[in-house]
Amino acid sequence: MPKNYSYDQLFSFSKNIFSKIGCSDTDAEIATTVLLSADVRGVDSHGVARLSGYVRLWEVKRINATPRIEIVYETPSTAVVNGDAGLGLVVAPYAMQVAIDKAKQVGTGWVSVKNSNHFGIAGIHAIMALEHDMIGIAMTNASALVAPTFSVERLLGTNPIAVAIPAGKEPAFVADFATTTAANGKLEILQRKNLQAPGGWVQTKEGISSTDANEIKKGGALLPLGGDKEHGSHKGYALGAIVDIFSAVLSGANYGPWVPPFPSYVPMPENMPGEGIGHFFGAMRVDAFRPAEEFKNNMDNWIQRFRSSKTIEGEERVYIHGDIEREITEVRMKHGIPLIKPVEDDLIQLANKFNISIGE
Amino acid sequence: MPKNYSYDQLFSFSKNIFSKIGCSDTDAEIATTVLLSADVRGVDSHGVARLSGYVRLWEVKRINATPRIEIVYETPSTAVVNGDAGLGLVVAPYAMQVAIDKAKQVGTGWVSVKNSNHFGIAGIHAIMALEHDMIGIAMTNASALVAPTFSVERLLGTNPIAVAIPAGKEPAFVADFATTTAANGKLEILQRKNLQAPGGWVQTKEGISSTDANEIKKGGALLPLGGDKEHGSHKGYALGAIVDIFSAVLSGANYGPWVPPFPSYVPMPENMPGEGIGHFFGAMRVDAFRPAEEFKNNMDNWIQRFRSSKTIEGEERVYIHGDIEREITEVRMKHGIPLIKPVEDDLIQLANKFNISIGE
Repeated sequence: MPKNYSYDQLFSFSKNIFSKIGCSDTDAEIATTVLLSADVRGVDSHGVARLSGYVRLWEVKRINATPRIEIVYETPSTAVVNGDAGLGLVVAPYAMQVAIDKAKQVGTGWVSVKNSNHFGIAGIHAIMALEHDMIGIAMTNASALVAPTFSVERLLGTNPIAVAIPAGKEPAFVADFATTTAANGKLEILQRKNLQAPGGWVQTKEGISSTDANEIKKGGALLPLGGDKEHGSHKGYALGAIVDIFSAVLSGANYGPWVPPFPSYVPMPENMPGEGIGHFFGAMRVDAFRPAEEFKNNMDNWIQRFRSSKTIEGEERVYIHGDIEREITEVRMKHGIPLIKPVEDDLIQLANKFNISIGE
Repeated sequence: MPKNYSYDQLFSFSKNIFSKIGCSDTDAEIATTVLLSADVRGVDSHGVARLSGYVRLWEVKRINATPRIEIVYETPSTAVVNGDAGLGLVVAPYAMQVAIDKAKQVGTGWVSVKNSNHFGIAGIHAIMALEHDMIGIAMTNASALVAPTFSVERLLGTNPIAVAIPAGKEPAFVADFATTTAANGKLEILQRKNLQAPGGWVQTKEGISSTDANEIKKGGALLPLGGDKEHGSHKGYALGAIVDIFSAVLSGANYGPWVPPFPSYVPMPENMPGEGIGHFFGAMRVDAFRPAEEFKNNMDNWIQRFRSSKTIEGEERVYIHGDIEREITEVRMKHGIPLIKPVEDDLIQLANKFNISIGE
């Protein structure tokens, strides 16, 4: 039975931990806000469950708690940001702000980032654009777990794409998805419950489709969105490749099989061609295309038409992207965030290590 | 047994037809180049097979052969182009050129288009960016054939995305794909051969997964990439939605179920909220991010690593996006473009209608 923790309690605990590893007060607050945005949205794999992982990366000196994040190359609508091995949770909001500032000036802003680390959920960075009446885009590469179509090798990460689009009276459209059939977090849930995976999620190390949720641990691979060629896996492979190239080849980060791993015990790849992990961010002012009110009116109409669409029998409704996460947020901000025992134990260990309290 | 026609022969015939409906010499040449780029690449559904369809749209006055295509709204990095109901085959290269020109000035250019028509294959427009050492992006909405996850209604087109990325010694990466499990053209091939479709491609009008390749004609729908929720169809639905919004809500074109149909005999949707079909184009100078040579060296390394990846037993190789189309182009430019009988008959009818010869 998971125990519920309030947002405020987890916030102050996480912020304390980030401060303990040497983050400035501001950075500790930003990192915590980004990290917990996953927990409140129900993306449990990317929230406080990863806090100890970030700490371990800092312990092995793969994360710099006091980075000098800076623009190293730019044009009026573009920039490359060097994250200086900082927490991706801090580097990403910095870079997204650069994209927003450029969009204010010339209509759009596009920022590729090198020398960063895991940035939490992609969606929260894309969402930064909304309050400026901009469309926000965020993507990142990640260590290789995914085999391209017809390959037995893991060459791509789950490389997520997030796009946030403002509306008028309706809540914003916010899509945030891994470019694989299923995110790795979904496999981890099945592993804990000792359940099989559906076909099309993973393959064995020989490249044969499998339903074993533990296949990755045996040298297998996640499959690109589509699952197999007949069902369009070359499209998921294309999406993962595009994310990798925009995030890392444009910036000078590591790409393909050379992206640094999240678990600190996994050795770094050999002959790395770049610096750290790469991200890519975009911001487009809607009024760089047409008056914002016209755009928002049409967007409301779009959302209403799709939401009121006739459902397949037995299904409750047709969702707009962002609906589910928004509804979970309402519940969790009110009733707290449920943590399963292994995550709770992990936080208690962290508390002990740094001699602080999880608090009330 | 399909008969082979040379590129030059089909080029001069198509150009003649576009001239006959009133296109300027320049426009007839551009339209033909774009149209035939599908045939030479092996995308037979989008080439001369559609020529008579464009003519019929002109006959019912849904296509304007002498459009005044113009920029109606802009910032340094963005523009909205009004296609004036012109051939998408002509409007799209105009708009992509605007994106390229803006990228020359400020690093990137982004153009949303309204009041256009079907633009052929997306890839050929994205490819325009390559000779300028830019990344090219092209997408378009299309009339609704696709049901969002959990819906029985057709609300989205097959809404393709194309991304072309320059390399150095290696040929460019060129991905071009519908955001559905399978493009409609693939279903049409199965229909002609009286074959079943794999599961995950289509659903019945009640929303039940089906293998009947004729399901669309019976009120069914194509499925978003992923096929069903368990295999990530909400991600394909997100991609189709993003293409629709970037192409049409940003520009003021029609979106969702209101996008005009390609077949001239299908009545226009009622209460259309915008003008014509919408497209979206992007161009990013690679040297707006880092020196072009550095980018290209890394891109070559990326391509070589993926291409040399170990294959699943029985598979010949791991493809880079663009490989297959490039190889087909080599063969077809040398040996001609095979046309199946119905397409050949269609061209003969067109020749008779306009009293011209298909030529040698």
